[in-house]
Amino acid sequence: MTGANNSHQVNFGPPRNFGTVFKSKLKETFFPDDPFRQIKKEPFGRRSIKTIQYFVPIFEWLPKYNFGLFKYDLLAGSTIASLAIPQGISYANLAQLPPIIGLYSSFVPPLIYAIFGSSKNLAVGTVAACSLLIAETIGGVVSPEENQELYISLVYTATLFAGLLQFILGFLRLGILVDFLSHSTITGFMGGTALLIILQQMKGMLGMKHFTHKTGFVDVVRAIFHYRDEWTWQVLLIGLAFLVFLIITRYVKKKNPKLFWVSAIGPILVVIVGCIISYFFAEKLGLATVGNLRKGINALSIQRLNFDPALLSAPLKAGAITGMIALVEGIAIGRSFGIAKNEQVDGNKEMVAYGLMNILGSFTSCYLTTGPFSKTAVNVNSGCKSPMSNVVQSVCMLFVLLFLAPLFRYTPQVALSAIIISAMLGLIDYENAYHLFKTDKFDFLICMSAFFGVSFISMDMGLMISVGLALVRALLYIARPATCKLGNIPNTNLYRDMEQYPIAHGTPGILTLQLGSPIYFANADYMKERIMRWIREERDYINGDVEYVLLEMGGVSVIDITGVESLLELRRSLVSQGIKMKLINPRLEVMEKLVISKCIDTIGRENVFLSVDDAIVACRYSLESSKQDEESF
Amino acid sequence: MTGANNSHQVNFGPPRNFGTVFKSKLKETFFPDDPFRQIKKEPFGRRSIKTIQYFVPIFEWLPKYNFGLFKYDLLAGSTIASLAIPQGISYANLAQLPPIIGLYSSFVPPLIYAIFGSSKNLAVGTVAACSLLIAETIGGVVSPEENQELYISLVYTATLFAGLLQFILGFLRLGILVDFLSHSTITGFMGGTALLIILQQMKGMLGMKHFTHKTGFVDVVRAIFHYRDEWTWQVLLIGLAFLVFLIITRYVKKKNPKLFWVSAIGPILVVIVGCIISYFFAEKLGLATVGNLRKGINALSIQRLNFDPALLSAPLKAGAITGMIALVEGIAIGRSFGIAKNEQVDGNKEMVAYGLMNILGSFTSCYLTTGPFSKTAVNVNSGCKSPMSNVVQSVCMLFVLLFLAPLFRYTPQVALSAIIISAMLGLIDYENAYHLFKTDKFDFLICMSAFFGVSFISMDMGLMISVGLALVRALLYIARPATCKLGNIPNTNLYRDMEQYPIAHGTPGILTLQLGSPIYFANADYMKERIMRWIREERDYINGDVEYVLLEMGGVSVIDITGVESLLELRRSLVSQGIKMKLINPRLEVMEKLVISKCIDTIGRENVFLSVDDAIVACRYSLESSKQDEESF
Repeated sequence: MTGANNSHQVNFGPPRNFGTVFKSKLKETFFPDDPFRQIKKEPFGRRSIKTIQYFVPIFEWLPKYNFGLFKYDLLAGSTIASLAIPQGISYANLAQLPPIIGLYSSFVPPLIYAIFGSSKNLAVGTVAACSLLIAETIGGVVSPEENQELYISLVYTATLFAGLLQFILGFLRLGILVDFLSHSTITGFMGGTALLIILQQMKGMLGMKHFTHKTGFVDVVRAIFHYRDEWTWQVLLIGLAFLVFLIITRYVKKKNPKLFWVSAIGPILVVIVGCIISYFFAEKLGLATVGNLRKGINALSIQRLNFDPALLSAPLKAGAITGMIALVEGIAIGRSFGIAKNEQVDGNKEMVAYGLMNILGSFTSCYLTTGPFSKTAVNVNSGCKSPMSNVVQSVCMLFVLLFLAPLFRYTPQVALSAIIISAMLGLIDYENAYHLFKTDKFDFLICMSAFFGVSFISMDMGLMISVGLALVRALLYIARPATCKLGNIPNTNLYRDMEQYPIAHGTPGILTLQLGSPIYFANADYMKERIMRWIREERDYINGDVEYVLLEMGGVSVIDITGVESLLELRRSLVSQGIKMKLINPRLEVMEKLVISKCIDTIGRENVFLSVDDAIVACRYSLESSKQDEESF
Repeated sequence: MTGANNSHQVNFGPPRNFGTVFKSKLKETFFPDDPFRQIKKEPFGRRSIKTIQYFVPIFEWLPKYNFGLFKYDLLAGSTIASLAIPQGISYANLAQLPPIIGLYSSFVPPLIYAIFGSSKNLAVGTVAACSLLIAETIGGVVSPEENQELYISLVYTATLFAGLLQFILGFLRLGILVDFLSHSTITGFMGGTALLIILQQMKGMLGMKHFTHKTGFVDVVRAIFHYRDEWTWQVLLIGLAFLVFLIITRYVKKKNPKLFWVSAIGPILVVIVGCIISYFFAEKLGLATVGNLRKGINALSIQRLNFDPALLSAPLKAGAITGMIALVEGIAIGRSFGIAKNEQVDGNKEMVAYGLMNILGSFTSCYLTTGPFSKTAVNVNSGCKSPMSNVVQSVCMLFVLLFLAPLFRYTPQVALSAIIISAMLGLIDYENAYHLFKTDKFDFLICMSAFFGVSFISMDMGLMISVGLALVRALLYIARPATCKLGNIPNTNLYRDMEQYPIAHGTPGILTLQLGSPIYFANADYMKERIMRWIREERDYINGDVEYVLLEMGGVSVIDITGVESLLELRRSLVSQGIKMKLINPRLEVMEKLVISKCIDTIGRENVFLSVDDAIVACRYSLESSKQDEESF
């Protein structure tokens, strides 16, 4: 028994040894989902099978696969393929690449994802934001018009780097890095990118021939008005008609989710109608088309990878940034659809799958792919049951590449622009931004800094400013942890924040403070000063003296050596003012540090209590007995 | 009343408005010590006096000053002046500056600190680590031998930048930045610097004429052995004699703190004896001396400040790093002596004082000064009572500059080297490093990375690596907060970590988890997955079903919008598994966020409890009644 007689036993048990603690920390950091849980219990033979199944999920789901499931995947796969054609051509356009590369990118990567991916919902394809980022970064070094071969080589190289980065992050189980891109950053980044992309599409919508290669808001708006004598109203009219049609299909889907297929086949309809119009009237209307699309499947591109040191920095940068964004986008989307269906998505395994898909993609004339939101939503709505829908998508694309590709050469640019704009409108999530504004001003600031940074500075700077702000906030949380004064709620033994529960009242002479954060170098000095301030305020407030300071440490999950020293320094200055310090409920790791550093011996084991109530009872007891002593003199 | 009948009322009160919260956050971040507390209550006239006294502390202490206090300060001031002469010459030597600049730097800055400084203990002077860093950074651009005038100009410029940085940080109340340099980093950095400085002194100790200008461990050791034919045993013998003498004086002080003056006057004795020896035997022994020291006080140097853009980066870098290090060293030392005497040191006010002292110093031929440990310790031991001891130091230095300076021209280099080595030996804090190793392996790693980084890479890189590691750990704490399973301690209504208190036991069907950290973007996904894993583990463990998950949120001080969304997602996946989620004791800020975001309405106010006990009682009640319902069928 410690402290007063009726208090409860505090466990000062011997600290766990370093190996145990280190192992458990490593596990929490890199394997928080305990992936090998099911494997450990099995005998050796089954264990190796399970391990292979763990790393290559197709071995897990394929043996149980049957025709009943395939019917669903066939429908879903062919629906996403019909979306893959217009999206592939459009986004390749955005990345300043020949349109056929967009089609290639929906053939090989989905096959690879079907083998290694762990999400049943994700549909693989190219994405708008990364396409624009690639154009911005690689296009800044090599002009896509003047030196197309070199430009394409560098895009493949960037894709390889993105894939390697994703694979390595997944292999090292550094999924933790992705956690530092917050929802607010993503919302702002996506919104800003969507705005830029929409502005870029004005070239196609207005039928312009000249345009800027820059992506910034100011440059693009200036270019639109600089070449205003090229505006063609016939093209604009066709574009607006397509756009209105697409917006209506999206609206139909929103009103009645069962009619999702209306919006899913909208884009391919626009492409087909566009092809027909341009086949007959291209010359007359002055319609620009995507042009030459060769028959045949992906050529090998491994020999085209370019590691020229003079140019390397551009693909490295493009690869690193797009790789990270693709990861965040894909994993977030996979997870959110997984949660809706109550399936778990393993972030690190997904990273490995994305990495392999982009590495092998860069060898086979594909550029960066991930799990885009629009395609995945269509996949889920069409009732996909397994990654087989991606295989179906691939087979459809194979058919298109082998037989139909040349037909799409008539696709007018204006149709693509309308498709891109309609997709982008859905990404400017002003409702979410308003929600952020209402609930959390700092999150709103993070979101807006990404939005305006992307629009007015550059995509990578905007992203970095926003991530930087989010990190600053995280560090501020660390450096300035909240403390509060606890009071007793009448007729209970509960002690709660007196600001939150005005009904709670304090005990004269005893100040109870709740500390609510790890205590370590970044906040140890602050904690000490804040506690001294609480004491001064308490003295001013009750106009009396403070004899005991009780520190409720249930919320302190860890303490480092600076924290321990600060605790001792705090105790010294309290002692010099005649105040006694008691600790309440130190948690496991904190207790270990206090015991190892011998801090607990200085503080005294009798000054550590299991609950606030125990400590208050003990303090009151000695306060009263000292008063009686005084009176008895 | 909420929940079951006997539970306590949870306060869902209306959230505070944004202005209030923002103001209180700003205050906690920038004014945690509430500096204007005493001023606010006063009438206007007294308030302006108090404000001036707050910003210029000399107006506070000088009116109350009397001769009784002055006696103490006179003794302390003259003692630190006797230390200032050898230290000033030695450290100027280390910074590759003419020795007279070292003496100048103990004349003007202490006067300015006496006016603006808030610590009664700090003694102002130059420091070894910053001197070496200046030599390393500025010397990398301009050679101090070949172009001494330019080199000195750039050092003044670096001092100006350091001062400006310190002043601005203090003015903006960004003392928070200093909090991110941890004790472990400082220990390692100081140790590494001390090692480098000791190696550098081998030139003086061995009486060598040639040496390297680099500061790295490998370069210096190579230089020592490369010029080994220059080693002079007579010089080494004298040097060792001085060193042994100094070490003995330090040992005497350690054994009997009352004899501190023995170690305080040791260095000046060594200088005097050295001067006598070299006056008579310099030629014979081949002793190098410091040479020419002009009479007269500091010349104005404001016209020598050099802002040549081609060279600007070196003084900017040197100023930024030394400015930060000087701040950390000075404030840490001021605080630790302040705590011993129970006086509070205002970090931000100190920064302003340091800033002014270095800005004005750079105008008057001084280089970077701060509060060095050795001098401050001597000051405190000599019984200083106020910043007046710094004024006394200044007056002594004035006397030395006007009359005695030329005498010190005979000071042999070997005496300075012995003084520096003996001071540096005290800075290699291997006991502390061992203590870190025993108590916290990660802190030890941070310390060692600074030590080896400084020794083998460069001073700034070593510092940055170490700070980077400390930040990574801080972010890891954020990203992987500890959670634990709570169990009831028999015969109480307390619920504690079941790993820490094996005596505690759970309630079948109810899983109680304690979350202990802010929940936000960097850990929201982890939290969600970790909780799902707790549920899986609980199912494996009890071989039964979990019907309720209770989340104890007393340790969650803040939540951001991503955190709120994760909580809702978690609830969705729990609901889909038929598990009910209850929240216990959300704190003020968390409750506000839950109410504003309407999350609380989704979760249901009846599912929020004030204590674990209340929640368990309510859950048990409904578990039992549902069982009875089943039985009654």
